[in-house]
Amino acid sequence: MPVNLVAPKQADLLTIAGIKLGIASAGIKKENHPDLVLIELAEGTVTSAVYTQNAFCAAPVTVAKQHQNEASPRYLLINSGNANAGTGEAGLVASKSCCQVVAEIANADVKVVLPFSTGIIGQQLPLDKIERAVPDTFQNLSADNWFDAAHAIMTTDTVAKAVSKQVEIDGCTITVTGMAKGSGMIRPDMATMLAYIATDAAVEQAVLDKILADAIAQSFNRITVDGDTSTNDSCLLMATAKAQNLMITEFESDTAQTLYQVVAEIMQQLAHAIIRDGEGATKFVEINVKQGVNAEECRQVAYTIAHSPLVKTALFASDPNWGRILAAVGRAGVKDLDLTKIAIYLDDVCIVEQGEPSFSYTEEKGQQVMDKEEFIITVELGRGQAEDTVWTCDFSYDYVKINAEYRS
Amino acid sequence: MPVNLVAPKQADLLTIAGIKLGIASAGIKKENHPDLVLIELAEGTVTSAVYTQNAFCAAPVTVAKQHQNEASPRYLLINSGNANAGTGEAGLVASKSCCQVVAEIANADVKVVLPFSTGIIGQQLPLDKIERAVPDTFQNLSADNWFDAAHAIMTTDTVAKAVSKQVEIDGCTITVTGMAKGSGMIRPDMATMLAYIATDAAVEQAVLDKILADAIAQSFNRITVDGDTSTNDSCLLMATAKAQNLMITEFESDTAQTLYQVVAEIMQQLAHAIIRDGEGATKFVEINVKQGVNAEECRQVAYTIAHSPLVKTALFASDPNWGRILAAVGRAGVKDLDLTKIAIYLDDVCIVEQGEPSFSYTEEKGQQVMDKEEFIITVELGRGQAEDTVWTCDFSYDYVKINAEYRS
Repeated sequence: MPVNLVAPKQADLLTIAGIKLGIASAGIKKENHPDLVLIELAEGTVTSAVYTQNAFCAAPVTVAKQHQNEASPRYLLINSGNANAGTGEAGLVASKSCCQVVAEIANADVKVVLPFSTGIIGQQLPLDKIERAVPDTFQNLSADNWFDAAHAIMTTDTVAKAVSKQVEIDGCTITVTGMAKGSGMIRPDMATMLAYIATDAAVEQAVLDKILADAIAQSFNRITVDGDTSTNDSCLLMATAKAQNLMITEFESDTAQTLYQVVAEIMQQLAHAIIRDGEGATKFVEINVKQGVNAEECRQVAYTIAHSPLVKTALFASDPNWGRILAAVGRAGVKDLDLTKIAIYLDDVCIVEQGEPSFSYTEEKGQQVMDKEEFIITVELGRGQAEDTVWTCDFSYDYVKINAEYRS
Repeated sequence: MPVNLVAPKQADLLTIAGIKLGIASAGIKKENHPDLVLIELAEGTVTSAVYTQNAFCAAPVTVAKQHQNEASPRYLLINSGNANAGTGEAGLVASKSCCQVVAEIANADVKVVLPFSTGIIGQQLPLDKIERAVPDTFQNLSADNWFDAAHAIMTTDTVAKAVSKQVEIDGCTITVTGMAKGSGMIRPDMATMLAYIATDAAVEQAVLDKILADAIAQSFNRITVDGDTSTNDSCLLMATAKAQNLMITEFESDTAQTLYQVVAEIMQQLAHAIIRDGEGATKFVEINVKQGVNAEECRQVAYTIAHSPLVKTALFASDPNWGRILAAVGRAGVKDLDLTKIAIYLDDVCIVEQGEPSFSYTEEKGQQVMDKEEFIITVELGRGQAEDTVWTCDFSYDYVKINAEYRS
């Protein structure tokens, strides 16, 4: 059961001038089930992308990177049901062939088409099925298809993830709409976190790149279900320049910052949705590490807590087991950590101060916080001004069940 | 259920001249249950020790390190049921008081006594109970008490862990006996891996230190249940010099190497026993990474596989899910990894070669290996001559159950 995650409504998702989406049922995994999405970007759209750091990146990631280096993207073709990962040379050929089919119908260069795949690893892409379905995606291209597209890219997600926001820039209404899929940082079978965010703002490439990089650092790169990183993760930010704002040319400008804020909010909301829909998740937990010498060490401590199976099982059990959190802080590898300066809070309940159980702490107070579906673990390192935040979920029986039984 | 782990028999455990063990029931966690062990080392015994790297080390670890820096240990006092960790200044005082009680009865300096604790974190040590029971441990000091001692230091271990071996050095029979406890690298509640290995060999301090460090690198430092590191982990190697061998003064000498081999074998056997008895373990898996540029990168890949919740749940499900192993190799952070050189084997079944599913591979072959309780995952990186090995177990429903329900 997802944690406090409400499905988007069709009416909540705003169209983006210059973006059309087409959906088809290719029958990749099952028949008559939408599993293919084409996104058409108007000419002049500026696109930024961030791809998985996993050395074993999937064939479509390799092809998408190549194509994007050589031309401005005009079409994104996304299939669910098959990740086209671990498929070698044949997988690369298949991804390129998919692009070729789109390019022929669009009468465009193959380089303007980027392929994306999510689903089972290690099985060759059913190219014939995709080729047969691509014309359908062109048939129903519409600006109004975000809702259906968000559903078509789902794999084991239990809830679709999409959101829209508007903001005023230069007296123009700027719209941003994004969708994502994934219920773990990785699931090499259902392999992927995919996210597509579009805006009608006019933004220069360098500014858009910086907006995407910074927003990712505050969203998709700060969530973890199980510490794994997928072979297919991709996140794209597209700006169509169809709104009438003056071209944004400086990241430090007020207009860029306004756009950054709304993009970051949308990406954070999508990232949180992925954790709320995490495999077997019953809790949504923010881990906030403060008073570090730099953000890196704060992040290191936050991830050590977030990845500790012992902390995660205690979260599942609603057990205010401060010893496990404290032990995770201790093994996070922060040099010259002064234990007598550490404080740990569950929401506003202080459980550890000066490295020891707080005098004011009672199990009842800790239990009250732990019984909630959402709360914040705050760690104060007492050695600086930096901080960082990570979001995670718990480890439940269902996590084991989902991942142990997935292929059977 | 432990995986292929046979309990030691009383008759299998050989006495070590110069070592006596006394056991008592202090009633720390429950009444009439042996939970206190005193180990007496003959004068002239040389002792090496390695302690937890966790910055939050428990009070007894702090005291043991201090004492060992200032004097040659003559007494080790070990209690189960309470870890005396996260207990602040009061915990340090309690650990020192335990040592003082032993020192008074033995008419010795307090510095020759080392304290060890394992059990619940964050509760003060019941000093009065321990003080009352210490005289009993002196009463029944005997060279023949290894079997009972191995049981008295258990916490959630389901099987006692102890082993003896003999070897010939300089025409003398040298005996080594060791015992250990722990069923995870950490369980901050039942907080600890403790190991005590003794031999009657005559060995100089520097050589013994090197033997312990190298043997740990091949045993306790190459196992992982959940990636966590305890606040109390301690491993001691004691040499009483009661055998008639010539003093071993060079680590490179044949005699030192002979002793090293047998110590390493015992420590590896104890380390494997900890994994076989791992929390909820149903599989015992060796992860062998070969053909690396150096051992560090091999270890990095091996641990990334061993800690991946997705790999561990696939092991539990007996699912030959090579995609998860391959994705773990890919995200291990090895620089300039050439995917087209990677090979992965389950026992002798090649599942991936040149970075792609092997042509000779069938699910049936993979399934046959995965259905076993013990097998080897071998990864060849194809970039050098180095290798390293790590041992781990799977993630089962019972792991979640044990760790979620432990305090309730």
